[in-house]
Amino acid sequence: MPSWNDTSTKKAIIDFVARVTKEGSRDFVRPEERLATFDNDGTLWVEQPNYTQVTFAVDRLIAMAPKHPEWRETEPFKSILAHDRVTLEKFTMQDFEKLVGVTHSGMTVQQFQEIVKKWLAEAKHPRFKRPYTECAYQPMLELMQYLRNNGFKTYIVTGGGQEFVRAFAGQAYGVPPEQVVGSMSKVKYGYDKQGRPELMRLPEVLLIDDKTGKPEGINMIIGHRPQCAFGNSTGDQQMLEYTGAGDGAKLMMLVHHDDAKREYAYGAESKIGTFSDELMAEAKKKGWIVISMKDDWKTIFPPEK
Amino acid sequence: MPSWNDTSTKKAIIDFVARVTKEGSRDFVRPEERLATFDNDGTLWVEQPNYTQVTFAVDRLIAMAPKHPEWRETEPFKSILAHDRVTLEKFTMQDFEKLVGVTHSGMTVQQFQEIVKKWLAEAKHPRFKRPYTECAYQPMLELMQYLRNNGFKTYIVTGGGQEFVRAFAGQAYGVPPEQVVGSMSKVKYGYDKQGRPELMRLPEVLLIDDKTGKPEGINMIIGHRPQCAFGNSTGDQQMLEYTGAGDGAKLMMLVHHDDAKREYAYGAESKIGTFSDELMAEAKKKGWIVISMKDDWKTIFPPEK
Repeated sequence: MPSWNDTSTKKAIIDFVARVTKEGSRDFVRPEERLATFDNDGTLWVEQPNYTQVTFAVDRLIAMAPKHPEWRETEPFKSILAHDRVTLEKFTMQDFEKLVGVTHSGMTVQQFQEIVKKWLAEAKHPRFKRPYTECAYQPMLELMQYLRNNGFKTYIVTGGGQEFVRAFAGQAYGVPPEQVVGSMSKVKYGYDKQGRPELMRLPEVLLIDDKTGKPEGINMIIGHRPQCAFGNSTGDQQMLEYTGAGDGAKLMMLVHHDDAKREYAYGAESKIGTFSDELMAEAKKKGWIVISMKDDWKTIFPPEK
Repeated sequence: MPSWNDTSTKKAIIDFVARVTKEGSRDFVRPEERLATFDNDGTLWVEQPNYTQVTFAVDRLIAMAPKHPEWRETEPFKSILAHDRVTLEKFTMQDFEKLVGVTHSGMTVQQFQEIVKKWLAEAKHPRFKRPYTECAYQPMLELMQYLRNNGFKTYIVTGGGQEFVRAFAGQAYGVPPEQVVGSMSKVKYGYDKQGRPELMRLPEVLLIDDKTGKPEGINMIIGHRPQCAFGNSTGDQQMLEYTGAGDGAKLMMLVHHDDAKREYAYGAESKIGTFSDELMAEAKKKGWIVISMKDDWKTIFPPEK
């Protein structure tokens, strides 16, 4: 993990891995049970100034708008189409669900993935001027690889859309589609005009994989408890709690965005984002380790391509 | 695969595996994408005279009945408790959902798995007088192992309950919990009296993993299309169709129960079970290979323990 400074944080990771992989040790975990779960937004890649999926949904709404004149009269679409991006910050979960409803359904799963891939190939982060997939955190990429080298399966457990994240998780993180747990829409099996089977995306939510939804999603897709979990916000609290409640050695970590110069500073101090004093207090109480981007990470992003 | 006779069926399996695993071949599939899906009831283990999970649910209803006098007045519970097992054959899906609703919820996921494990350790198949997990088909166990030896991930895709099958899939089939796709109940994250996190099973269905639900469940849990799929009934038809609609070499097979002496004979001839003339016609049309238990299998069950 060359992008990590030699701090107690890095040492905690290495010590944990040594304990669970050492045969005969009290904390030994068999390779087939080794499981690490990672939140995505703010843990594996940048989530400011907006969740990438929200930016995608807005761009897609704008692209689809010419065929939907009715959106000019209906909120939240009206504000978005008026390029009133500021109001996005005040969006409620219901607004977001409406936006996802119209932009993420009505096509097959395969078509949706192609739309996402095409967008990701073209879109760039407004501040870092590089593709979003290259706004992943280099130290976290190294951590995932380090865990995989030690027999762990690395899963993403995201409040974002499962199919949205599947579209790039292989290329960006080395995580295959079966290892992505995310918010899920209902999908319907049917046939296209040529009679070929297809899976159509419906505008119906099946699981919101956030907060309590994270352990519920882990149970649904994986069916056993992780030994280590990585998050950055109140949306990850239940996943870390659930992980920590298991037997044996455990490692729970929170990425703290305290580096305004190289990335963003938010959290307990700045009140931007969803890191809070309460979460910091919970971390202290439960022994979750807080990763300081500023102090623990040598570099933030992968080298430019 | 020593329990398979040297018929064209066995040859079709070996030829398929050779094609997809040969580097440079047009049909080569990278190891990380090799995926085989198996139905459970009637494909991996005996499903006569009743689905094992129905027998479990009935036994559990009987065990729980003393605390539920109201069941003596309410169908379908009344008939079951009157040991009117014959009526089970006339059960509707709604009756079965009611039975599962009261017997499969109200406990944690972990508690439910322990209940299933305890039942499986004690219950015996009425005809074969051995534990249900030893009523697995030896040739199918060998086929799963053969595919795994060739880099395939073997998944179970069952109309039965995901957690019910997870309780024994590791021991009986060598399939870990994350590789079991099944009918799912809603699960709720909360805390026990000591404040420890727990996942409670609710009496609410999230997915019926049968017929069109099978490709939908495969997409949800796995996120990519299998190259080979194994079933035995009309409930598997969409899974086989979906598998066959992909690119490259494909292998779809149906276990045909035509061996009354060693197991059961049902299907196109006997009208027991869910194998039908239509399914047989569909298999012929689509090039699905029908496995004859009588002709293709040397032995049916593993040696007695």
